[in-house]
Amino acid sequence: MSQPSGKKEFCGIFAVFNSPNAAEMTFMGLHALQHRGQESTGIVSSDGENLYRHADLGLVADVFANPHNLKKLKGHLAIGHNRYSTTGSTSVANTQPMAINYHGGALALAHNGNLVNSGSLRQQLERAGSIFSSSADSEVILHLLARSRKSDLIGQLRDALGQIEGAYALVILTEDSIIAVRDPHGFRPLCMGSKDGTVVFASESCALDLVEATYIRDVDAGEIVVVSEDGVKSHHLPPVDSVTQCIFEFIYFSRPDSRIFGEYVDKTRRKLGKVLAEESPTPGADIVISVPDSSNTAALGYAQKAGLPYELALIRNHYIGRTFIHPSQVMRDYNVRVKFNTVGGVLRGRSVVVVDDSIVRGTTLKKLTSLIRHAGASEVHLRISSPPIRYPCFFGMDFPTSKELVASHKDVEEVRSFLGVDSLNYLSIEGLLRAVPVGRCGYCTCCFTGDYPVEIKEACDKHLLEHTTHIMELEFKDDKE
Amino acid sequence: MSQPSGKKEFCGIFAVFNSPNAAEMTFMGLHALQHRGQESTGIVSSDGENLYRHADLGLVADVFANPHNLKKLKGHLAIGHNRYSTTGSTSVANTQPMAINYHGGALALAHNGNLVNSGSLRQQLERAGSIFSSSADSEVILHLLARSRKSDLIGQLRDALGQIEGAYALVILTEDSIIAVRDPHGFRPLCMGSKDGTVVFASESCALDLVEATYIRDVDAGEIVVVSEDGVKSHHLPPVDSVTQCIFEFIYFSRPDSRIFGEYVDKTRRKLGKVLAEESPTPGADIVISVPDSSNTAALGYAQKAGLPYELALIRNHYIGRTFIHPSQVMRDYNVRVKFNTVGGVLRGRSVVVVDDSIVRGTTLKKLTSLIRHAGASEVHLRISSPPIRYPCFFGMDFPTSKELVASHKDVEEVRSFLGVDSLNYLSIEGLLRAVPVGRCGYCTCCFTGDYPVEIKEACDKHLLEHTTHIMELEFKDDKE
Amino acid sequence: MSQPSGKKEFCGIFAVFNSPNAAEMTFMGLHALQHRGQESTGIVSSDGENLYRHADLGLVADVFANPHNLKKLKGHLAIGHNRYSTTGSTSVANTQPMAINYHGGALALAHNGNLVNSGSLRQQLERAGSIFSSSADSEVILHLLARSRKSDLIGQLRDALGQIEGAYALVILTEDSIIAVRDPHGFRPLCMGSKDGTVVFASESCALDLVEATYIRDVDAGEIVVVSEDGVKSHHLPPVDSVTQCIFEFIYFSRPDSRIFGEYVDKTRRKLGKVLAEESPTPGADIVISVPDSSNTAALGYAQKAGLPYELALIRNHYIGRTFIHPSQVMRDYNVRVKFNTVGGVLRGRSVVVVDDSIVRGTTLKKLTSLIRHAGASEVHLRISSPPIRYPCFFGMDFPTSKELVASHKDVEEVRSFLGVDSLNYLSIEGLLRAVPVGRCGYCTCCFTGDYPVEIKEACDKHLLEHTTHIMELEFKDDKE
Amino acid sequence: MSQPSGKKEFCGIFAVFNSPNAAEMTFMGLHALQHRGQESTGIVSSDGENLYRHADLGLVADVFANPHNLKKLKGHLAIGHNRYSTTGSTSVANTQPMAINYHGGALALAHNGNLVNSGSLRQQLERAGSIFSSSADSEVILHLLARSRKSDLIGQLRDALGQIEGAYALVILTEDSIIAVRDPHGFRPLCMGSKDGTVVFASESCALDLVEATYIRDVDAGEIVVVSEDGVKSHHLPPVDSVTQCIFEFIYFSRPDSRIFGEYVDKTRRKLGKVLAEESPTPGADIVISVPDSSNTAALGYAQKAGLPYELALIRNHYIGRTFIHPSQVMRDYNVRVKFNTVGGVLRGRSVVVVDDSIVRGTTLKKLTSLIRHAGASEVHLRISSPPIRYPCFFGMDFPTSKELVASHKDVEEVRSFLGVDSLNYLSIEGLLRAVPVGRCGYCTCCFTGDYPVEIKEACDKHLLEHTTHIMELEFKDDKE
Repeated sequence: MSQPSGKKEFCGIFAVFNSPNAAEMTFMGLHALQHRGQESTGIVSSDGENLYRHADLGLVADVFANPHNLKKLKGHLAIGHNRYSTTGSTSVANTQPMAINYHGGALALAHNGNLVNSGSLRQQLERAGSIFSSSADSEVILHLLARSRKSDLIGQLRDALGQIEGAYALVILTEDSIIAVRDPHGFRPLCMGSKDGTVVFASESCALDLVEATYIRDVDAGEIVVVSEDGVKSHHLPPVDSVTQCIFEFIYFSRPDSRIFGEYVDKTRRKLGKVLAEESPTPGADIVISVPDSSNTAALGYAQKAGLPYELALIRNHYIGRTFIHPSQVMRDYNVRVKFNTVGGVLRGRSVVVVDDSIVRGTTLKKLTSLIRHAGASEVHLRISSPPIRYPCFFGMDFPTSKELVASHKDVEEVRSFLGVDSLNYLSIEGLLRAVPVGRCGYCTCCFTGDYPVEIKEACDKHLLEHTTHIMELEFKDDKE
Repeated sequence: MSQPSGKKEFCGIFAVFNSPNAAEMTFMGLHALQHRGQESTGIVSSDGENLYRHADLGLVADVFANPHNLKKLKGHLAIGHNRYSTTGSTSVANTQPMAINYHGGALALAHNGNLVNSGSLRQQLERAGSIFSSSADSEVILHLLARSRKSDLIGQLRDALGQIEGAYALVILTEDSIIAVRDPHGFRPLCMGSKDGTVVFASESCALDLVEATYIRDVDAGEIVVVSEDGVKSHHLPPVDSVTQCIFEFIYFSRPDSRIFGEYVDKTRRKLGKVLAEESPTPGADIVISVPDSSNTAALGYAQKAGLPYELALIRNHYIGRTFIHPSQVMRDYNVRVKFNTVGGVLRGRSVVVVDDSIVRGTTLKKLTSLIRHAGASEVHLRISSPPIRYPCFFGMDFPTSKELVASHKDVEEVRSFLGVDSLNYLSIEGLLRAVPVGRCGYCTCCFTGDYPVEIKEACDKHLLEHTTHIMELEFKDDKE
Repeated sequence: MSQPSGKKEFCGIFAVFNSPNAAEMTFMGLHALQHRGQESTGIVSSDGENLYRHADLGLVADVFANPHNLKKLKGHLAIGHNRYSTTGSTSVANTQPMAINYHGGALALAHNGNLVNSGSLRQQLERAGSIFSSSADSEVILHLLARSRKSDLIGQLRDALGQIEGAYALVILTEDSIIAVRDPHGFRPLCMGSKDGTVVFASESCALDLVEATYIRDVDAGEIVVVSEDGVKSHHLPPVDSVTQCIFEFIYFSRPDSRIFGEYVDKTRRKLGKVLAEESPTPGADIVISVPDSSNTAALGYAQKAGLPYELALIRNHYIGRTFIHPSQVMRDYNVRVKFNTVGGVLRGRSVVVVDDSIVRGTTLKKLTSLIRHAGASEVHLRISSPPIRYPCFFGMDFPTSKELVASHKDVEEVRSFLGVDSLNYLSIEGLLRAVPVGRCGYCTCCFTGDYPVEIKEACDKHLLEHTTHIMELEFKDDKE
Repeated sequence: MSQPSGKKEFCGIFAVFNSPNAAEMTFMGLHALQHRGQESTGIVSSDGENLYRHADLGLVADVFANPHNLKKLKGHLAIGHNRYSTTGSTSVANTQPMAINYHGGALALAHNGNLVNSGSLRQQLERAGSIFSSSADSEVILHLLARSRKSDLIGQLRDALGQIEGAYALVILTEDSIIAVRDPHGFRPLCMGSKDGTVVFASESCALDLVEATYIRDVDAGEIVVVSEDGVKSHHLPPVDSVTQCIFEFIYFSRPDSRIFGEYVDKTRRKLGKVLAEESPTPGADIVISVPDSSNTAALGYAQKAGLPYELALIRNHYIGRTFIHPSQVMRDYNVRVKFNTVGGVLRGRSVVVVDDSIVRGTTLKKLTSLIRHAGASEVHLRISSPPIRYPCFFGMDFPTSKELVASHKDVEEVRSFLGVDSLNYLSIEGLLRAVPVGRCGYCTCCFTGDYPVEIKEACDKHLLEHTTHIMELEFKDDKE
């Protein structure tokens, strides 16, 4: 189940207000955001009378493979969600957007991020008589909202958001409105666009591009944007000390063609490569290559700054089907080769700079550098366009536990030795912060520094979860293949 | 979607305590109860650590087609549910058993029946901050239970059941116990059996037979039976004025090989035929035939009492696949023929008594009697082993609205004329009550008499539901064929 | 895989000429013939330009579940096929009708029956340069037809049929005609009907009934009926010594509502019961019961002749899904109970006559009589409405090998003892022949007598097949559940 | 159905001799060759006793998604095939490898290429009594082989191959041997590798890399390689005037990490870019970009030679699911955007050289250059690393008819104007031939020049096919989504 790299992208969200093709646009938007979550996908639409929902395990283009089905998601409003989840909770019950009835009517919600106090909130809510049918944070938010004594949705939402802590970018659908929210720290990206009177929200601007909507602006940290017949209105949550946007979105998560946190990812990622080249040049190297596709731009930046030729030496096979979810032993032995092959002629006899965006466990990279050497490279110099990842993330990035993070217990020389490369350099924290755009907003760098912008209590509070009986929703789909 | 007869069987439930094959036994039990609901099925098991759930649309033997999957439903306890539902709510979201976490732990519930005050309870609960993710009555019960201030499950259950009105037979699964409940009126059947230390509950005893469990007794009306490590304990809800078991279970619902309400269905159904023959003989008739398979026993009873030969003149095709769910027009024209064919040699030139169990809309029966006549019957005399159905049921039988019940607006002569038969007789209410077993419990005959044992407020209170936005959970399965 | 009874029905065929709904009518006809083969089904249609084919594993109503798909089978002509097959060759490659191109154009063929010289013909054809892509007899027929030097299809067909020996009822589709054939011995039934200018062929008349076509007549043994724009024309193959229709079609195969070999099955089957009652009365018995549904009519005949009450004591569960194809051990232990349950009240304390149509292995019947006794029957007297089956069939009935036929190595008393019943009587051969209709055609009774109407060489010629490398077409469908 | 580019890759083949994991290795090999055919895939294995076959529509990793299923393809030998086909013949019936029985035993065959005289051969074979169940060329080869009077397989194969004309790379499986063949012109690539006593054949060497086999050599044009217990033996077909390898394999078909025709594709493709830069420099341009991924290497070569920065300005979405097979109109409007997005920051205000490998219809490229301009590029200069495609291919590349080839009826200036770019240059034929490796073998350049190495008669002989009735094998799979 684990991806070789150990990185798991966590959720993409999309919303459309006022389009005759709301569900189809949402489908297109989710398709553009496929890289943010491949396990399940869902759309909820509204025609003012009813909410229509469909969600299932699988890729966007498979779950909604039949365009006739999209027509059944009626109405001029829709929201959608792509989700990545850990093994245990891979189930239809946890698919988003969630749709509920409550005293204020019907409502659907899609969430990107991770709450850090959902365990204690859940416990409080259960004590007050709430029932939970999923393990999703989103259900906590919905319960809080429904229990608010406020009479209007914005008031209810303020009540609910006032109690939750952590990372959340939300899109909410009611019968006749769309609401978009970013948490006060602004961990996750969320932007707004428009097209001929239609208003669109998306985790990344690449989704706006696909539906040919124009990027207007980011939703601000702590902002609640309401779009209804009355137009677009903005509300604000109480500000926090500092806005701390997830710097890993620039390093790895977001697509290079997206604009997030006000800047093109591509541009920033190239700067990462350039600063890395300044900090850690590689005298005597012949060529610079990237680990495709996430490191392409940083590698190009490195090559340009270093004055070295950029070469294509690793070919990635993009036809990754379902087999590799439950590989046999024979296949497992081939797992890196299934994804990557070397281009023999390019590597033979060369001293090679390999640029990768980050190292999590290091196991895949170890195999990959071995492949490169096997293809004839005389020297392999690894340059990483981010600092060593030493701490887990509690804000939506599915890093493994500290123990599995190779840099949490090995210093740079030990990692180099483990990977079997001739030299290894990471980008410095300072270099990283020099490369990303500077504005009124700051960044969360907790995975490198351990400085968490929000206090993390629950992770240590084992008592909170240890008596919980888990409901394991079994999907028999995998057995079907 | 509509079945030709207009009758839709409503749900079967099953539970197992203390068997190494709990899920497999539940699978077998649900298979035996397949006639009580063919739209979806589900099982929840417990191994004391976790609850394991799988539910999907389809027949029991298809949803759980792979025995390996049953192994994943771990543990010594399990409950299961077969469900029939109306079109709108055919969705995975509404499949049962529902499983939740609440302050008391994890719990799953399967429900057969229909509450008559769920609308107002739902409204109250929403006002108090509850959220609803399905349209099932069961969710109302779970909310009430979770909101109880009692510290023990039986107390919580008493609180919840004290507020609901209507028909309910329930099986509940916790980490380490099974609870079975029948409502104080005893509308729906529920019996208990055992096998080598394993305790089993089932809607009908035919499910006990299949797993080779011995029938012990019915769960009493108003009884709560708890089975745990501490043994079997019994609790009782406050009694109501009269126990009113659904008499239609004897007439049509239950399988003839089941024992319900303390008596074999076959035996009662045969008496219905005999009393019908006494009340409405058919002098001059040559043969008696049944509409297979639900009327076989009553027809046999009629024939024996009337001293006429019982003949097999209608052959039923049991291979009814998914096509007929969305038939094309060509197929629709053949709909009765797809199910039934006549045996030419038996009918030609004969004066025939046709015994059927009941008439709902009459449209199928009209086509069927036309087929019989077309096959050469000289006379067709229709004898119905129940009184005219004139009123809707609010306790779990999915009759159509009064308007569609042919007997609600036509007298017997008009129905006869509509059906195009030579004579038509129904069983009288008195005859019906003479045929069913007499004991300390009475029967609900509301569909014939309009005397509802529980006051029906909500059906008339349109305001209750008219502002509700429905969440339409779309399944794209049907499109797959 | 093995059905409890050990009997496997072998193929049903259907054809339509000149209907705007040819594919839909074929679908309906195949549905009516579902009992003759449940493993795979297929339809080929023609619009005069192209042939359109779809075939797959599964029930008719599942393979053609979507009526929109039937529309893709264009044209006014169609033929169809239901197939039962043994385990090894369950594959899409072997589905019928087969469709080919040859020098005469395009042609599709559906076959019910079994050739006894296909092995040697296949060998000859391979020697002459033919290639085989399936193990079906039908491919042999197509090769012979294509290799004929005759210039017209009837001539080619005569050439091919002149070389094959055994049982075959065929329907053939060309661009613009339908051809129906019965072998000279007339082993398998095939009848012709019409409806408003549409001509229809079917294995049994129940399929004509479903599409509301009128039965015209049986296709004669040795007759080739051609239906085209030029009308209906008849050709005849050289006659054989005697017509030997499969008597087992009357005993078990055909539906009771069908007319085959010129007579209603129901009528004949009832006579079987009556003659059985004359030959083997059961003095002192209380009731007569049948093993539903195949023995219902014979049991009724027995009861009427014997003057005993006919009772319904076994209830059959018709919801048999895919699980039972690969049952787990727990389920296997329940296999007879899954299909049948006893009606307690009817059997208790009674001396029971059980009428069944035949005994193959006897293993299921042994369990069933044990169930009956377990339900309280004081005595169990078994009456079989056919003689002991002692010999394998080579003409289309999938009996097991002699070794597995219980009557091939046990006399009646030994079978009685094996089954654990109080008495056992079979119908005599003479009684059997007395019950079936007498006409110009005779019957094959080889499974009782060992008198094969066609010499069987290949079964003993092991050399013929022992060097064959089998091509195992694997279906991964079963793994999908 | 049409890919935006109008190019359709035609088939990949793979074979393994003597491996305990023959089917799994074949699976891996086919996965590496997925780019050569995405419509269907199949594997046939042999354990010396039987042949085991499974083939279905879909990607390799989906059809063989369950590793348990691969175990069912028993034996130490296996061959496999990926296939691309045109709409009409997308069916399970046409999946490869085909497996047959003939007088020499059982045999399976997988074919990459296209015969130019299959129509007339088919006609001859039909006249001689052959039947055809598919429209595949492979069936023609099998018939010819089976009809040979030679007693050994190599003799039979020589007979068959002596009659066929056109492009074919074949792998053949018998009970105990693997045979690999390349046609005398050597149109399609086929190479041989080994690994610990296992012999492997593959269309491209990237498949050897994935299974960690060592590349040994190409199968020669006109060579028949037989691998059996007796070792590897080589036979040769009569030579033709000139070896004419498909030059388009270098330009577009093959993966850059493959070695074909004795050379790395990457290396050759880079030379294409360099020669193009020499022939058609772009003074004043700011950057060079590629149309990913097929043009990456050529663009890099161009940039290096031209001394211009290579930039990543188009991002390709690799999650292309099944929806886009039957897109709705709304989606169709977005079709290029679904695949490609522009990186805003890179293009704005720049004069851009776009390198693409070839132009077929030009419709996709027109939209793509419009996107680039829309993203702010000041000038768009298109450089194509191959000459104008003016003629159809009859040797395995699925170009459309001449009418649809934009360069067949427009000169370069007209194409430039149609595409709306500022300048357009193609590589010259001379430049192309300068870039590809020179050896004893030549190249087929017919799509550019119209000089067909084999005479094409059938394409003009309409009489050959016009009376053919096509058998349309319908798959209902697409309807399932």
